[in-house]
Amino acid sequence: MRRSIATVSLSGTLEEKLGAAARAGFDGVEIFENDLIGSALSPRGVRSLAESLGLAIDLYQPFRDFEGVDGARLERNLRRAEAKFELMVELGADLLLVCSNVAADALGDDARSAAQLHRLAEAAAPYGVRIAYEALAWGRRVDDYRHAWRLVREADHPGLGVCLDSFHILSRGHDPSEIRDIPGDRIFFLQLADAPLMPMDVLHWSRHHRCFPGQGAFDLTEFTGHVLAAGYGGPLSLEVFNDVFRASDPERTAADALRSLAVLEDETARTGRGAAPPRGRAAPVELTRLPAPTRARGYAFVEIAAPEHAAPRVRGALAALGFRHTGDHRSKPVQLWCAGTARILLNATDPQLGHTWSGDAAVTALGVDVEDADAALRRAERLLAPPLPRRRDPAEADLRAVAAPDGTSVFFCPRDPADGEDWLADFTVPVPGNGDAGGPQLTGIDHVGLFQPFDHFDEASLFYRSVLGLEPDDGVELAAPDGMLRSRAMSRGGAGPRIALNASLLGRGPYADVRGGPQHVAFGCEDVFAVARAMRAHGVEPLRIPDNYYADLASRTDLEPVAVERMREHGVLHDRIGDGEFLHLYTPMLDGRLFLEAVQRTGGYAGYGSANSPFRMAAQRAGARG
Amino acid sequence: MRRSIATVSLSGTLEEKLGAAARAGFDGVEIFENDLIGSALSPRGVRSLAESLGLAIDLYQPFRDFEGVDGARLERNLRRAEAKFELMVELGADLLLVCSNVAADALGDDARSAAQLHRLAEAAAPYGVRIAYEALAWGRRVDDYRHAWRLVREADHPGLGVCLDSFHILSRGHDPSEIRDIPGDRIFFLQLADAPLMPMDVLHWSRHHRCFPGQGAFDLTEFTGHVLAAGYGGPLSLEVFNDVFRASDPERTAADALRSLAVLEDETARTGRGAAPPRGRAAPVELTRLPAPTRARGYAFVEIAAPEHAAPRVRGALAALGFRHTGDHRSKPVQLWCAGTARILLNATDPQLGHTWSGDAAVTALGVDVEDADAALRRAERLLAPPLPRRRDPAEADLRAVAAPDGTSVFFCPRDPADGEDWLADFTVPVPGNGDAGGPQLTGIDHVGLFQPFDHFDEASLFYRSVLGLEPDDGVELAAPDGMLRSRAMSRGGAGPRIALNASLLGRGPYADVRGGPQHVAFGCEDVFAVARAMRAHGVEPLRIPDNYYADLASRTDLEPVAVERMREHGVLHDRIGDGEFLHLYTPMLDGRLFLEAVQRTGGYAGYGSANSPFRMAAQRAGARG
Repeated sequence: MRRSIATVSLSGTLEEKLGAAARAGFDGVEIFENDLIGSALSPRGVRSLAESLGLAIDLYQPFRDFEGVDGARLERNLRRAEAKFELMVELGADLLLVCSNVAADALGDDARSAAQLHRLAEAAAPYGVRIAYEALAWGRRVDDYRHAWRLVREADHPGLGVCLDSFHILSRGHDPSEIRDIPGDRIFFLQLADAPLMPMDVLHWSRHHRCFPGQGAFDLTEFTGHVLAAGYGGPLSLEVFNDVFRASDPERTAADALRSLAVLEDETARTGRGAAPPRGRAAPVELTRLPAPTRARGYAFVEIAAPEHAAPRVRGALAALGFRHTGDHRSKPVQLWCAGTARILLNATDPQLGHTWSGDAAVTALGVDVEDADAALRRAERLLAPPLPRRRDPAEADLRAVAAPDGTSVFFCPRDPADGEDWLADFTVPVPGNGDAGGPQLTGIDHVGLFQPFDHFDEASLFYRSVLGLEPDDGVELAAPDGMLRSRAMSRGGAGPRIALNASLLGRGPYADVRGGPQHVAFGCEDVFAVARAMRAHGVEPLRIPDNYYADLASRTDLEPVAVERMREHGVLHDRIGDGEFLHLYTPMLDGRLFLEAVQRTGGYAGYGSANSPFRMAAQRAGARG
Repeated sequence: MRRSIATVSLSGTLEEKLGAAARAGFDGVEIFENDLIGSALSPRGVRSLAESLGLAIDLYQPFRDFEGVDGARLERNLRRAEAKFELMVELGADLLLVCSNVAADALGDDARSAAQLHRLAEAAAPYGVRIAYEALAWGRRVDDYRHAWRLVREADHPGLGVCLDSFHILSRGHDPSEIRDIPGDRIFFLQLADAPLMPMDVLHWSRHHRCFPGQGAFDLTEFTGHVLAAGYGGPLSLEVFNDVFRASDPERTAADALRSLAVLEDETARTGRGAAPPRGRAAPVELTRLPAPTRARGYAFVEIAAPEHAAPRVRGALAALGFRHTGDHRSKPVQLWCAGTARILLNATDPQLGHTWSGDAAVTALGVDVEDADAALRRAERLLAPPLPRRRDPAEADLRAVAAPDGTSVFFCPRDPADGEDWLADFTVPVPGNGDAGGPQLTGIDHVGLFQPFDHFDEASLFYRSVLGLEPDDGVELAAPDGMLRSRAMSRGGAGPRIALNASLLGRGPYADVRGGPQHVAFGCEDVFAVARAMRAHGVEPLRIPDNYYADLASRTDLEPVAVERMREHGVLHDRIGDGEFLHLYTPMLDGRLFLEAVQRTGGYAGYGSANSPFRMAAQRAGARG
């Protein structure tokens, strides 16, 4: 299907918006009126620019408060419309969006409104312009797409149809399945926007918090399926009012936008929702498919880069957690550390630039265990993920990798070395005297916690969802000592390579960017107290948690005093959801912002202990100063 | 009255919060439980710290979901409470806040809840602890302070009273006058928070968007008057959940907080609302008064500092607008430029540091025409505005000045030189050949537009309101080419020294800080077209506004085509509110971010043409690149 985007979804001048849309690969745009009014380009100039960029101008919008008015107002509105028709001829746009009237004095007489819309379509016809009438969720008299369709049907003019906007329909909880009752050729335009569920007035919600499909809470796959089943064959167009997008690099936003449409088309095709030949058409509209999603089972490895001064602390913490240094890379200064199935690559260099790592110790790469690395890479590339070149010697494994939006490298590691390249074979240099230590066993990498720039939180979430096939949970907000954080965990049904994405809710302050917030790798274990004892035996004290935490824990749970005391002694935190329990402890900060965690899950506990995060962060903050 | 603040209103560790509250001048604090739990200090340690800082611990909070439960839950809740009572004895806190139950299964039996609250108060008594019961706006069964008071009355225990929170009462639109029906000695605590009117769920609104009294839309003077009239004599305490405060410098937030309480007390006293001796008391509670508010009539001057490379452009623009260079300062490199009553000081140095100005040209000082400069300064100092020292020669005027939160200097200029010092007399060096040019007359300084860091927007608004006696309007949000802006104008009934405060809604991006956003000075005139012609005669072209703007203007108004064409020719923008009209034009950017405006108001137009701002900003952006 053709893909389009409203200029209001992007930042900058009209020229910058058109350029960004074209470079991301969109086929067309909706021109938002204020973008044209503020532009030094004439309408003909905009037309030429769009043509030179290969963009169609699919819609001019919005035209407001037209229908449901008295006779004198109607004449004024028609004169106002004529000026826009003339402009559209210059612009080369043949479809005008008319939003339902929001004026307090709009009249509720359907017959009158239908007749007025008929007159508008009649006036537009000589200009070659058609009218797409849309019910705003906060329209004064018309706030439901079914009502808009009744008016359009009653107006009965070939140049008049409806515009459907997923936000206006789904935000109000209106049943989208009745879209199937509208003949496809009377759906003149389709605007798509997603949104997180937010407990606020629909106008405020719409103006500030829309997002791209797949980044919010609406089921846009189902929605799009209904529209296709009705026989709609026009563009899928994104009209997303979003404070962040209005202030972000339009090139990046446009790429994020196109990714969301690619996923939406693929999922609509995959679920078969758009597959049936719609009424009145010989064949279904063609939906572009992507290679099948990666089945990411878990982590093959996590790579940590550490500067020289921090590397001993990182190695010491790994050793204390039961890791053994089992190999060195043949050609690079990278160590392999293993504990059971958990593998950490410890890199002294910047893995993308090659030179010595000079930043704080940080998680720089995720190695994801996949069935088919080539297919995973092909899908990722179709989703506009930049592939990463790897410097390697000819005999070494050639791992497929892409860059995530936050700069983290994501490696696709084939599950069976026979199906791909055996990256572990590159770590052949044996390290003497580092066999199994017989200590407490870690069961693997439980999850990785990464900070994201707030402005790219939804982009990152969509990236990991679409590229790795992870599903985000509902997320939580946390009051950290330095401000509010948003945290969202992603997993495959509670398993797979779990990632906890965190961001500063204000998008500024100490955790504002990807280099700012703390990062961690959490390891599963079967006895967190045994891990604590082993850590101490290796001279690494678990992060000290305030006594006040345990006094409160004892007061609000039925845990035995001796159990609470044991937790206090070892810095173990506790959470419970239903029958599931979670016991976890932390290493100290290893270098500014990197720490490790050991977690013990029982009774099907599927969370991350986020209720404890504010106390952990306070303890880390106190430790950083102590 | 005593002044207190909840630790949740401030950022940082508990130690940092207590220190900031003490240094701002608070008498006490509410300890928010999570702040204690996350603290490495023991309760006794917190008590010692507070004592050493001279802070009382007025309240420990919150205790949740206590009442309206079955018998088994009641016993568990009582055990949980006992642990808190023990902690409070250590902490030296004798008042516990109990919030109305929010659990889905809370029971609605008032007699049961009252009996349970009685049991809680009875259990607290041996510890010397009393209970303040508060109706949360989203309580499951109790969400109205009158309901909470009925339960407290029915429970009938001397250790049980109500806590009133202005947000929970005013956000729900509950009538606060019935507070007068509660005996003052049963009001155990008063929490104050303001909030902007926001169309959202009350829980979300409360958790993120509370602000200090005088920064939002609630009438807290009236509210406080009701509480005082009831006979309450405890502290005024600020409990403000706010995303920005949670992430800001706690010292600055605490000063902002104390300023808000000083203004609130003064206004409550001034309106006489707290003056009547309350029932059961011999005398009214003592309210601290401030010196009377400044009656700021308008601008005596606006000072612009310009680096050497930009000064010629600024001078050229002033001359083109009809200003004449009429004097030089006796001892500093400052020029006085006059046009009618409009005066601009053009400074080549940093007015506070004395050395050559090296930044972009900027508005550095506002000279405000006041009746009594000494009184204005005394009031400002009581409102924690830092007074500014001025380097001067002995014979020169000694102007009183303070620093606004954004760093702008505010000078109090006495209206009658006989009442103070005549600052104009310092500009005695005559400039030859610069008499009146006979051009179009500017009528004065209409307003000044300043960008604020978003995080200090409310602080700045409260500063200008309390120090200069200006009232903020409701504000607007504007879609600029680089993101959403918030704009709020302040004036005295539409006149006085008008200020338009602007900020980036996201608090980041190009307009994030005080040095980032464009600034301007707008001059009133009686014929904006004559001003445009004079500008051009001086070789200064008004900012070019796109033709598309005029095509749209013609389509949506009944302006004659010839009138629109005249506006187009001269770059004049148009706005209309009711019968009032506004015609305005801009100079080009004079240096990165400073520009000037000429405005013509007719028919009582009281706005600022903000509907045109996005187009002006787009034109400036195009100009900056062109």
